[in-house]
Amino acid sequence: MSSVTTNDHANGTNGTNGISKPKESNVDVLIVGAGPAGLMAAAWMAHCGINARIVDKRNAKIFTGQADGITCRTIEIFDSLGFADRVWKEALHLQEISMWNPNAEGVIHRSDRIPDTVIGVSRFQQCVLNQGRIERWFIDNIKKYSNDTISVERGVLPESLVIDESKVEDDDAYPVTVTLRTLTEEEATPVQAATASKSVVSDGLFRSNLMQEDDEADLLRKTQTRPGTEEIVHAKYVIGCDGARSWTRRALGLELEGEATDYIWGVMDIIPITDFPDIRNRCAVHSAENGSLMVIPRENRMVRLYIQLKEVVPDASGRADRSKITPDLIFRAAQKIIAPYKLDYEYCDWWTAYQIGQRIGNSFDVHNRVFLAGDAVHTHSPKAGQGMNVSMQDTFNLGWKVALVTKGICKRDILATYQSERRRIAQDLIEFDHKFSRLFSGRPAKDMMDAEGIDMEEFKRAFMRGNMFASGMQVDYGPSNLVVKAGDWCEQGDRSEKSAKLLTEAKISDEKFSKKQALATEIPVGKRLASFKVLSQADARPWHIQERLKADGRFRIVLFAGNILSAQQKARVDKFCAKLDAPESFLQRITPADKAIDSVIDILTIHSSPRRDTELLRDFPDILHPFDHHLGWDYTKVYADDVSYHEGFGDAYKNYGVDKERGCVVVVRPDQYVAYVGDIDDFEDLENYFEGCLRLPAVGVAQDISIVTETVSSVTSKVAGEVKLAVRLVVE
Amino acid sequence: MSSVTTNDHANGTNGTNGISKPKESNVDVLIVGAGPAGLMAAAWMAHCGINARIVDKRNAKIFTGQADGITCRTIEIFDSLGFADRVWKEALHLQEISMWNPNAEGVIHRSDRIPDTVIGVSRFQQCVLNQGRIERWFIDNIKKYSNDTISVERGVLPESLVIDESKVEDDDAYPVTVTLRTLTEEEATPVQAATASKSVVSDGLFRSNLMQEDDEADLLRKTQTRPGTEEIVHAKYVIGCDGARSWTRRALGLELEGEATDYIWGVMDIIPITDFPDIRNRCAVHSAENGSLMVIPRENRMVRLYIQLKEVVPDASGRADRSKITPDLIFRAAQKIIAPYKLDYEYCDWWTAYQIGQRIGNSFDVHNRVFLAGDAVHTHSPKAGQGMNVSMQDTFNLGWKVALVTKGICKRDILATYQSERRRIAQDLIEFDHKFSRLFSGRPAKDMMDAEGIDMEEFKRAFMRGNMFASGMQVDYGPSNLVVKAGDWCEQGDRSEKSAKLLTEAKISDEKFSKKQALATEIPVGKRLASFKVLSQADARPWHIQERLKADGRFRIVLFAGNILSAQQKARVDKFCAKLDAPESFLQRITPADKAIDSVIDILTIHSSPRRDTELLRDFPDILHPFDHHLGWDYTKVYADDVSYHEGFGDAYKNYGVDKERGCVVVVRPDQYVAYVGDIDDFEDLENYFEGCLRLPAVGVAQDISIVTETVSSVTSKVAGEVKLAVRLVVE
Repeated sequence: MSSVTTNDHANGTNGTNGISKPKESNVDVLIVGAGPAGLMAAAWMAHCGINARIVDKRNAKIFTGQADGITCRTIEIFDSLGFADRVWKEALHLQEISMWNPNAEGVIHRSDRIPDTVIGVSRFQQCVLNQGRIERWFIDNIKKYSNDTISVERGVLPESLVIDESKVEDDDAYPVTVTLRTLTEEEATPVQAATASKSVVSDGLFRSNLMQEDDEADLLRKTQTRPGTEEIVHAKYVIGCDGARSWTRRALGLELEGEATDYIWGVMDIIPITDFPDIRNRCAVHSAENGSLMVIPRENRMVRLYIQLKEVVPDASGRADRSKITPDLIFRAAQKIIAPYKLDYEYCDWWTAYQIGQRIGNSFDVHNRVFLAGDAVHTHSPKAGQGMNVSMQDTFNLGWKVALVTKGICKRDILATYQSERRRIAQDLIEFDHKFSRLFSGRPAKDMMDAEGIDMEEFKRAFMRGNMFASGMQVDYGPSNLVVKAGDWCEQGDRSEKSAKLLTEAKISDEKFSKKQALATEIPVGKRLASFKVLSQADARPWHIQERLKADGRFRIVLFAGNILSAQQKARVDKFCAKLDAPESFLQRITPADKAIDSVIDILTIHSSPRRDTELLRDFPDILHPFDHHLGWDYTKVYADDVSYHEGFGDAYKNYGVDKERGCVVVVRPDQYVAYVGDIDDFEDLENYFEGCLRLPAVGVAQDISIVTETVSSVTSKVAGEVKLAVRLVVE
Repeated sequence: MSSVTTNDHANGTNGTNGISKPKESNVDVLIVGAGPAGLMAAAWMAHCGINARIVDKRNAKIFTGQADGITCRTIEIFDSLGFADRVWKEALHLQEISMWNPNAEGVIHRSDRIPDTVIGVSRFQQCVLNQGRIERWFIDNIKKYSNDTISVERGVLPESLVIDESKVEDDDAYPVTVTLRTLTEEEATPVQAATASKSVVSDGLFRSNLMQEDDEADLLRKTQTRPGTEEIVHAKYVIGCDGARSWTRRALGLELEGEATDYIWGVMDIIPITDFPDIRNRCAVHSAENGSLMVIPRENRMVRLYIQLKEVVPDASGRADRSKITPDLIFRAAQKIIAPYKLDYEYCDWWTAYQIGQRIGNSFDVHNRVFLAGDAVHTHSPKAGQGMNVSMQDTFNLGWKVALVTKGICKRDILATYQSERRRIAQDLIEFDHKFSRLFSGRPAKDMMDAEGIDMEEFKRAFMRGNMFASGMQVDYGPSNLVVKAGDWCEQGDRSEKSAKLLTEAKISDEKFSKKQALATEIPVGKRLASFKVLSQADARPWHIQERLKADGRFRIVLFAGNILSAQQKARVDKFCAKLDAPESFLQRITPADKAIDSVIDILTIHSSPRRDTELLRDFPDILHPFDHHLGWDYTKVYADDVSYHEGFGDAYKNYGVDKERGCVVVVRPDQYVAYVGDIDDFEDLENYFEGCLRLPAVGVAQDISIVTETVSSVTSKVAGEVKLAVRLVVE
């Protein structure tokens, strides 16, 4: 054991209070921190059936304040988990952004209106809803999909973390040992939660970066006198989602790099009483002299105000004096900025303040065994509504990889793509935030000659770029053993040597890649698969493609079968399916003998022939709608790109840029990102992709699943009416 | 006390076992039966804050089988209650109907495909989901909106019902006395529920009309030996939703009129194993000689089959021998009909059988104090998927009327419209069902000369008419004090004298009505208001109009304000609003002094000017967006008929047939049916409408609510940051 890291505060408490030997157990995945990033990781474990635990040092959820913006990509992800409908119903849907700037007389006026979500990027739009609700749905979702085996263990504090380096390359080992201490309920209750139920306004300063330390130190002090229960956990993987002051990060000896600015902002959630015309729109208000304000409407008549505090300035140490900051001071600043409009309130739900700064972790993992995600590895200003979204998307990227490696489906080296893919996103985010903060916190230029002032046109352009960034749709992962594309890996990744060296072999030539990408011009490899409506062949129901890409840990082959009624095309599809169906195919080899043929890789077919001229059982090879002895044919896998009765025409082939005659083959990762595009005839390239990332048994070790493809005609006749099987069907 | 009706079976049990005096209490509304109709009634009581109870003799919900079709109108109603999203997510959406008929060789083939829901009638389409799920959401919804005060009391059996006729005209009296007996859990558990958890298939025969008596007789026998607890309830109103063998109906001495046919059908819910191409579509299959079959796909891979049983014929008494009917017999009949296709199954969820017949109650109420709804007053064959829908729509019609009369908002005589509106629907339904059953159960004609056979073209036409009927969108209520329209009331009602005499005065002249209806050609008075998307003026969010017509017991004035940017039109709107705002207006008079101005009548405005050229606070009178001291302006009441950023253009004025310049005024009842259309200048006619149905205090007794219209500029300035009010906001 060479790498030993221990919580300083807790050192020495073990021996003195040790009455009995602590409980000791193995777990595949241990998640530290049950905020949105930790819960997203736990959701993957639940959906993939992984033996996992999730612990949080605090005893209660946060009910008010915190992050509130939800980008369209995040809602798509919630949809893949199964609770986007709850969010969509309850959230405030943001529609429009107004820009308010000083006119020639220095009085603010509405200078521009733009759509809040870039038009056409998603079937969802940016929303606002408090973090507490989102955590609630995560918890319900995790409970349901894990059959109650995973639930947040609260009041549990990690004390030491040890990595046994001799075991980190062993797939079956549990190389990470973590000591956990369970606090009593009283000890683990944070200050905010304790007061939230009273008629006192919740403030978020205890988590703000204006505090020198958070409540953890206090928790730790308590453990020295009343130690609670100690437990030792051996984990294959640990995911640290424990916030900006991450214990896990410190235990690993990793650092956040970056600096704070002089800009101090306050935040208030209030029900406004005002004659300001745009109080229900998102607004960026630049006053002439009094600073800037952002208005973000919320659910339940509330509005969040981000308010620049020009009166508060950092001292020589670079830190602001938090004792000066009160709701009164913050609100007076808002009133000055928004004048001549009147602004008042009776109800305040929550308030806080922060100092703008951008910091990023130098590494996102240690030995691909312990990972950091969310605020633990990147912090920035909250106004862009990106904190919670990027954090959840970190673990949405990481979770399935850890799950599939744990299950022995994927090779362990895919884990290196977590840092290459997500640290790059964090780099982009803090770069944007740095620039945007300067433009938003700066004084507007009075005229062309005012070189020190901010050009409002430049601000607007940055805002619009930020909006595109904020949608989450620009995320474009670089080449790796999970993404078959050309280009310089290092440039498309996080530029760290550690990641680069692992993945350089994955490249294909620019020329070859261009040819492949040309088969589906609007399905860019590395980006998430856009969604259009197609019709179920069996029953004509329109589905958004993304509704069929659930977060269940399966890779998906989307077979654009083209014009299946053409004999020539049908022959190509038949040949492709025959290869898939052959015992030596990657599909047959990766599927466990006791599992259905779609349990690891799911095949969805979208054809371009008129649905009414086509028959599922007549025109499509069996492997595209597999037969099950107990349940009959699978009617849910073949779709037509055709006009629906009630919901218009998705025009998927056109929108995806796929040839209607010849089609193509697309591989989509479990997180909906496009991994591969190729021709229907390029079976070898497709197989190579899966050879690169899956732990495929060698040819010859193929498992006998021929039973699955038996046709209905061979089903032995049964005495009708006799019930032979009670199938358990769970309704969501 | 002149009208005394008592449960025969229970007679005499009172005295012999009486140990202590039974509990006695008052309740505004007592609902007997907790199926969909009873739950819908209870939902209204919960949403309107009525003191109500709902009892059911059975101890457990039904989990499988029963009704399963949900029409678009029903989903719209669920939306108004707040749970359509759950239904829409979980249900199977029906899209397409296939007709299968014998070809020249007598072999079945697909002869036609039509859309399942008539295109464009609703934003929802016909769905399938089992009754147990729907009851579950009702129960959750009732719990939430009643703050846990209303929940189904199970194992409670009514024993006697007495109406004190001397009190039936007294608004404050409790003229109906019902004796209830609470059974022990064991006694109240029905046969089906007792076996449902075992691996035995649930059968529904115990509720089928092939049984001579249901489990009630058995329950009653038990009460004679183990009587449970007796209780006496005095109610203002009783709603009997206790099914085809309704105890309430019998207690009232009312009858169902109509006859049974010779057609016997079986029903099975199975997971089919088949090569029949349309097993995931709704299909009407007419075999040449073996009878007919309807296929209705369901959720969870299941399919419901309605199977004609030609082998079973009623005996001399007109009843079929139920002992002959087994799943085996039913399924063999299905296999014969669907041949040459193969059909098999391993899993059967539920089965039953029934004899087609149509019967209707001769009266739907007694003294407008005790009402009957659902199967208690109309029965017919289940294939049209109408039973549960029409039953729920009965109480959706009745519930708000009873609630508003109980609250003293509406006059008691509006209750007579329940029978006139709903008995007419039941009459139409059984008339259609009679014709349709004959066409579906008959043998297809072999050729033009085969006079005894059914013409398949005639069947298709009937099917399509039935589809329109089934959507629920054809419902068109006749003139009354709740619906201002012309035409013969009796012809548009249920043709009963009892109802006709109460409502003849409500008529307006054909000429006057034509002029009014011409102001909104696509908002027919008497039908439900269709839904199009409009934009919230304050934040640009698109909403379906119906999303703003929640089932909260409020009438709604929809002010089509026209082109508000025209000075002339603005003057008309201002004048209209000044009249609404005057202390003597119906709006001010009906609003209780301690309630918000929108608590009884809600005013929604839809204007036709470009949203971006219009300002909520500048262009619209205060009464259209009322001010609240604690919460500021109401931003949720004014809408623009304009293009949305992400969801297209509702084009509401055009779709409603309303002039974009001059607009009009529409009154919508709490159940979304259109009550009145008039010109903006016709304030008197509008007032007359509300004079006709509301219990308006006389002018001069007007309540002081001027405080509500105070403008924001007069709000006294407060020390910012001080929290003066902790507003409780409940998130759905």
